[in-house]
Amino acid sequence: MSHRTAFFVSDGTGITAETFAKALLAQFEIEPRRVRLPFIDDPDKAHQALRQINHAAEVDGRRPLVFTTVVNPEVLQVLHGHCKGMLIDMFGTFIAPLELELGIKSNHRVGRFSDVAKSREYHDRMEAINFTLDHDDGQTDRDLAQSDVILVGVSRSGKTPTSLYLALQFGLKASNYPLIPEDFERRQLPPQLLAHKKKLFGLTIDAQRLSEIRHERRPNSRYASLENCRYEVAEAEAMMRRTGIRNLSTTSKSIEEIATLIRQELDL
Amino acid sequence: MSHRTAFFVSDGTGITAETFAKALLAQFEIEPRRVRLPFIDDPDKAHQALRQINHAAEVDGRRPLVFTTVVNPEVLQVLHGHCKGMLIDMFGTFIAPLELELGIKSNHRVGRFSDVAKSREYHDRMEAINFTLDHDDGQTDRDLAQSDVILVGVSRSGKTPTSLYLALQFGLKASNYPLIPEDFERRQLPPQLLAHKKKLFGLTIDAQRLSEIRHERRPNSRYASLENCRYEVAEAEAMMRRTGIRNLSTTSKSIEEIATLIRQELDL
Repeated sequence: MSHRTAFFVSDGTGITAETFAKALLAQFEIEPRRVRLPFIDDPDKAHQALRQINHAAEVDGRRPLVFTTVVNPEVLQVLHGHCKGMLIDMFGTFIAPLELELGIKSNHRVGRFSDVAKSREYHDRMEAINFTLDHDDGQTDRDLAQSDVILVGVSRSGKTPTSLYLALQFGLKASNYPLIPEDFERRQLPPQLLAHKKKLFGLTIDAQRLSEIRHERRPNSRYASLENCRYEVAEAEAMMRRTGIRNLSTTSKSIEEIATLIRQELDL
Repeated sequence: MSHRTAFFVSDGTGITAETFAKALLAQFEIEPRRVRLPFIDDPDKAHQALRQINHAAEVDGRRPLVFTTVVNPEVLQVLHGHCKGMLIDMFGTFIAPLELELGIKSNHRVGRFSDVAKSREYHDRMEAINFTLDHDDGQTDRDLAQSDVILVGVSRSGKTPTSLYLALQFGLKASNYPLIPEDFERRQLPPQLLAHKKKLFGLTIDAQRLSEIRHERRPNSRYASLENCRYEVAEAEAMMRRTGIRNLSTTSKSIEEIATLIRQELDL
C-alpha cells in the first residue's frame, strides 16, 4: 500500500484542525501518516511548512492532504500559492459565506487559546477541574452543593474519567461517589447525597465488562470476580431504581457520549 | 441587538460540530444563542430538529446558523429539504472533494464515539487517565518509567490541569511532581526523578500571577504571599537551569497551548 500524508496546519495549537480532520478521515478506509504543524503564524514559518508538505508530495508520489485552520491572510497566501498538497481550508471555506450572511467582516483573529486563557470561561474551566479533582471518589463533602452533577456508581463504572471530561471540556463541576458494599447493606445512598437528589446521576455497567476492567487493576481478586461484580451491579441498579436516580450504562459508550447524555438529561 | 441562534446538529455527540463552530464564530463579534442537538440519527429526529430550527428562524426574524456534522444521508436530506436556517454542512462540504482525491467512497459511518470506545486508542486513553491520576502531585514513584512526560514545577504552576489534558486529549501518560522548599534547600531535584531526565519538563509562572492563584485557594497565607512566590519561582527556575530541564512559562498560556508546546519539545 502506498503512503499518503495528512498535515494539520494551524496558526494556533492545531487541536481544532486535527480533531475535525480525524472525524473526516474516519469516513475513509485509509491510514495516512499524520504530521502536526502548529503555531505557523508568519510567512517564514509558512514557507517552512510548505517545504515539508511539498517534500512529502515527492516522497509519497501522492498529494498530501493539508487540513488547515489558518486565519492569518499572509500565511494562507503562502500556503495557497505553491502547495503541492490538497488544501482543505476549513476556516476560509466557511468564513466568506458567514460574512455574507451576518453582514459583517470577520476579524481574522487567530484562535489563540491564550486569549481564551484570560477569559471568564477559561477561569471557570480551571475552577471546575480543581473542584472535580477535590471531589473525586467521595473524597470530601465540602461545597457539595456547588456541584453541577454528582455521579454515583460502583467502583470502575466510569465515574472518574467522565467527571474529568465534564470539567475539562465543558467547565462543569462534577463530583463523584462510589457505591460500596456498606451502602448496599444499609440499602441506602451515602447519606450526604440525599440533599442533592436532583443533581445525582448513576453510571452502571455490564457485570462481565466490569469484571474485565477490575481484573486489569487487581488480577484474581474477589473485588474483580464476576460473582462479586454481578452482586454489586445488581445492588447498585436496584438502589438507583428505588431512589429514582436517572442512570445509563457505560458498557459500550465513550466518555464523550456519556458526558453528552448526562448534559441532555440534567439540562446542563 | 436582535438575536441570532446557532444550532449544532450531529448524529453523534455534536462535540466536533460545536468545537469547530465555536472556532469559526470566534472570528465574528456576535454572541448567538447556542442550541445543541446531538444524536439526530434518524429522519424522525431530523424533522423534530428542523421544527426547532425553523421556529427559531421565525422568533428571531433571522436565519439561524446551523452547523452540522451529520453523516447519515437520510438525516441530511431532511435538513437540506426544508431548512429556514443557513446550513453549514461541515462534513458534506469536504467529503465529496476528498472522495475525488482519494478515489474511494466514504463509508457514511456516523462518527460514533462508541466505536471509538472499543478501539485500542480509546483503551490507551483510559489507561493514561488512570495513570495520570495515580501519578498526580508526586503521589507515587511506582511505574514512573512508563510516563511519557514528567512535569515539575512549584505548587499551582499548572501541572495538574496540563497532565490531565495530555491524558484525556492525547492519551499520554503524564506524571507530575511539585518542587517544594525542601528541594530548594537541598538544591536538588526529587531524587527519584534523576533517572528520568529526558522525560522531565518544567512549568514556571510569573510570581505575581502565582500569588493571585494561591490567594484564591488559601487567602492571606504565607504560601500565597508575593514574597514567598517570588522565592519559590526563582529557586525553581534556577534548578531547571542548573539541571538542564526544558521549561515554559504558563502565565498567559492555556492548557491547550502548554500541552501542544510540550508535545513539540518532547516529540510526543
